[in-house]
Amino acid sequence: MKLANDLLLRAARGEQTERTPIWLMRQAGRVLPEYRAVREQVGGFKQLVETPELAAEVTIQPVDILGVDAAIIFSDILVIPEAMGLSYEVIEAKGPTFEKTIRTAADIERLHIAQPDDLHYVMNALQITKRNLDGRVPLIGFAGAPWTILAYMVEGKGSKTFAVAKKFLYTEPTLSHRLLEKITQSTINYLKGQIAAGADIVQLFDSWAGLLSPEQYEEFSLRYIRAICEAITEVPVIVFAKGAFFAREAMGKLPCSVIGLDWNMEISTSRELIGPTKTLQGNMDPCLLYAPHEKIVEETHRMLQAFGPERHIANLGHGLYPDIEKEKVRFFIDTVKAFRFKD
Amino acid sequence: MKLANDLLLRAARGEQTERTPIWLMRQAGRVLPEYRAVREQVGGFKQLVETPELAAEVTIQPVDILGVDAAIIFSDILVIPEAMGLSYEVIEAKGPTFEKTIRTAADIERLHIAQPDDLHYVMNALQITKRNLDGRVPLIGFAGAPWTILAYMVEGKGSKTFAVAKKFLYTEPTLSHRLLEKITQSTINYLKGQIAAGADIVQLFDSWAGLLSPEQYEEFSLRYIRAICEAITEVPVIVFAKGAFFAREAMGKLPCSVIGLDWNMEISTSRELIGPTKTLQGNMDPCLLYAPHEKIVEETHRMLQAFGPERHIANLGHGLYPDIEKEKVRFFIDTVKAFRFKD
Repeated sequence: MKLANDLLLRAARGEQTERTPIWLMRQAGRVLPEYRAVREQVGGFKQLVETPELAAEVTIQPVDILGVDAAIIFSDILVIPEAMGLSYEVIEAKGPTFEKTIRTAADIERLHIAQPDDLHYVMNALQITKRNLDGRVPLIGFAGAPWTILAYMVEGKGSKTFAVAKKFLYTEPTLSHRLLEKITQSTINYLKGQIAAGADIVQLFDSWAGLLSPEQYEEFSLRYIRAICEAITEVPVIVFAKGAFFAREAMGKLPCSVIGLDWNMEISTSRELIGPTKTLQGNMDPCLLYAPHEKIVEETHRMLQAFGPERHIANLGHGLYPDIEKEKVRFFIDTVKAFRFKD
Repeated sequence: MKLANDLLLRAARGEQTERTPIWLMRQAGRVLPEYRAVREQVGGFKQLVETPELAAEVTIQPVDILGVDAAIIFSDILVIPEAMGLSYEVIEAKGPTFEKTIRTAADIERLHIAQPDDLHYVMNALQITKRNLDGRVPLIGFAGAPWTILAYMVEGKGSKTFAVAKKFLYTEPTLSHRLLEKITQSTINYLKGQIAAGADIVQLFDSWAGLLSPEQYEEFSLRYIRAICEAITEVPVIVFAKGAFFAREAMGKLPCSVIGLDWNMEISTSRELIGPTKTLQGNMDPCLLYAPHEKIVEETHRMLQAFGPERHIANLGHGLYPDIEKEKVRFFIDTVKAFRFKD
């Protein structure tokens, strides 16, 4: 089906666009009262992830309500550990917890390589979303990067330092690689399933990239991201590695289309390190959306100018925070959409 | 008094040293059973900070037990907000909390500019430590950088995002600067008091540097750090801004002697950005100390070679984690102390 608005895909491929496309990480989420209503109806975050009709509904909400240039499927990066054999729970205001964690070779041996069928509820949600979007905007699929997934599977919960997971890398490098290989294979299967179910582009989230040293990041994260990028040839791939400023030069050489930047990464330095062949995505500080309107306009224009008219997808440098006002979110989006570069 | 071991001070001043000096952030702390025994005796972390004889005792423990080349006064960066009028509590495994927080001009008006006398217990602890160290190694004083202190005074507790504090910067820039000025003045007074009480060198901890964008960091943090560095002319100043990779070039121009690096900051890139005139401190990943001995030796040698024989103070890139084994900490220190550069 031909898309009515394919700005995001054209920008990802490096083609010219009339204006800079925009979507926001966590756009389907707690900033929207409409989202909170649906989540309450079904009982909680995880139930919503697992109910395709409703996941599709909240996926489309920001397209209707905020006017973003893409929908991103409402799901969780932790569906992969669960499909591999480690189920998780999400406790409000505490985050995810796993009952079992990975410690030994036997734990890894027992893990299943995930197949698209194991995650049929995500595939169903994508199919319903795709049908209901009716070609208005592209649909983004996603998965966690293998290191970030390992971090949860070993740590068993969120953490400031992920010291248990990092200890595993230092004390069990061979097991770490075996686990990362299984996660990588599962993630490739999963993303290919998402593409078959309708995803027009996919994003890898390496949320805990910034916890590793440059050497460990190359060894335990980038090589697996590279393997996934090599395997996904059907659609463009976005890699967002939060905190991996030290890997920007290496990320410029990944076989992917788009590199996401967080708000710490200065734009012109990042462009220089990454090189001219990637589209860049980002990178406004989410906290700007607490600011008065004039400040939002000023900073948004500065960001757009710094990225320039080509190879940029506007976004935040991190997900939306839940207490940001919906009106401010829409104002930021409208500011990006109204902006034009002078010839 | 002439110091028996002045390696740290010589390295800070850029003079030649027979070997690389080493101390560790949080060396006086939970990795030592001897520390835990003293803390239990007095009832808790904050009581220990406020009891000069015992604070001095735990300050000296790592010199005796671990063999580090410097003592750092056992205290907390949050004594400054308390001296200014916002008292805090430390709840085990939950971190610090403030009953009152800063929201309005009147809140800032009410704050007191701290004087050394307001923190007589820290000054006493320094004097006792200095006496009991008896010239063995230098004594390090410290304070939080103004942005990090503001973050706690506005947020009222630890946070992953410090979104409340960042919102304050975006919505109340004038008040933010007024508050930062009061904190800066208090910090200068406090550090001068510490120097008068015996500190041979002082470190500024900007623990939450990595939460700000490059532009905000310059506006709300670096300029106040610069003011403190300009005011402290008596002893060398170390600036450790965790996560401020984007400010390395600017930090190279600060009127201070030493720049601390975290473990994300690649060593040769950092040296290039900071330039040749600063001593660098750091930057081993604390999680390396979970690794087997061979790995600790390999990585420690790699770090020492990368920094080179001059203008380096060995340290971690962050504080010690409480569950690291004391034996591994000592092994890391011994590995640094045994290393010699080939001519």
